[in-house]
Parts: sequence; C-alpha cells; structure tokens
Amino acid sequence: MKAIILFGHGARDSRWREPFDRLADLWRVRQSGVPVELAFLEMMQPTIEDAVASLVSQGATQITVVPVFFGQGGHLRNDFPVLLDACKSKYPAIALSATPAVGEDLAVLQAIVDFGARAL
Amino acid sequence: MKAIILFGHGARDSRWREPFDRLADLWRVRQSGVPVELAFLEMMQPTIEDAVASLVSQGATQITVVPVFFGQGGHLRNDFPVLLDACKSKYPAIALSATPAVGEDLAVLQAIVDFGARAL
Repeated sequence: MKAIILFGHGARDSRWREPFDRLADLWRVRQSGVPVELAFLEMMQPTIEDAVASLVSQGATQITVVPVFFGQGGHLRNDFPVLLDACKSKYPAIALSATPAVGEDLAVLQAIVDFGARAL
Repeated sequence: MKAIILFGHGARDSRWREPFDRLADLWRVRQSGVPVELAFLEMMQPTIEDAVASLVSQGATQITVVPVFFGQGGHLRNDFPVLLDACKSKYPAIALSATPAVGEDLAVLQAIVDFGARAL
C-alpha cells in the first residue's frame, strides 16, 4: 500500500503548522486511498521516523516523502538524507523514497505567481 | 505604478535561492508590466528595504510584498511587520502592503497535493 509523508521544517509558534494541517486535510479529500502523515525536521512533532512508523502500522509498504520546502539548502541536502537513511535502515522491507522540494515544481511556482497577481 | 516583492527566508546555501530566482523569472514572463524584486529576511540579499528602494527608483508607487513562506510563525508575525513599518516610515509616499503567506492560498496547497500525487 502506498502512503505519503508531507515533511516541513517546523517552528516554535504552533500556528505555523496551520497550512500543513490544511495540506494534509486536502490530501485526505483528494487522495483518500493514500494515507498521509505530516512530519517535521525540528520544533514540531512527529519526526519522519514517527510518521513512517505510523504509516507502516496502517499497512503502508511504499512511502513517498514530499519535502514541503521552497529551496533546497542545508536542511534538505544534509539533514534530510540522514533522517531518511535512518528510516530505511529501520524499515528495510519498506520502499521509502523522496521527491525534490515542492519549490522545484513549476505548477507550485505558477500558483504563487497567480496568488501575487490577484493581490495587486 | 504597481510593483511586487517576493519575500523569502534566506539560507546559507546559495543554491537555496534557485526556486526564488525561477519564481521571479516566471513573474516577469507572466506579469511583464509589473516590476518584481526578490527580498530575504536573513542570510541573503537584498533586504526588503533594498528591494523597495530599487522598485521606487524604477517608478513604483504601489508595492505589494508577498511572503513566500508556508507557515505564519514568528518570522512573519513579529520580524516582518517591523521591517515593513521601517519601509513605510522611510517611503511615506509609497503605498506599501503585504499579503498573507503563500501557504494560506488553497491553490498553492492544491498544487503541492498534485505534485505529491504525481510522485506516487
């Protein structure tokens, strides 16, 4: 069974995660057959490893991690692969992969341009 | 004349800004009559004040700042209003406003869901 993890940075202010909660809710509406969990790099829970454990307990065998970041800096180039490798070691029977950051996607950038244009 | 500032966090790794450069390029293609500048909170240049100065020198009189952030935490709730107010004080003749973070926009969230769904 396929599943997805939407992976964000995390922040001290709990309100920061509101769009991530909405994103997961939207996923559940649009992709109801594919379980989703949020995960955060720091300052918020759950971790990627916790999210993987939750999805595996729901029967997931193929998990895709989507980094909900704009740019690919040190967090995604250095910290994230270490976290992902730790999960792969812990769950060798699970096919665990990651996409590029969502900021790499032209349609995401186009949606941001459209949002700015509507605000003019 | 209207203009726009796309405001990001900034990062140590210069490659982090690549999607921001693409975002500004996309803006120039789609909204060619509306000058655009990037600006960053920290670790990257220019600042919001530098970006405002550049747009004013190009003839801008109404500037909209779009925070290219997902969540609205301390950076947007505390740091950003101070920076914006400093610009308003320095340029009282310029109509300077800001939108919510792009993560508040449903179409942006939908584009992220679509990106994740294509990766399954």
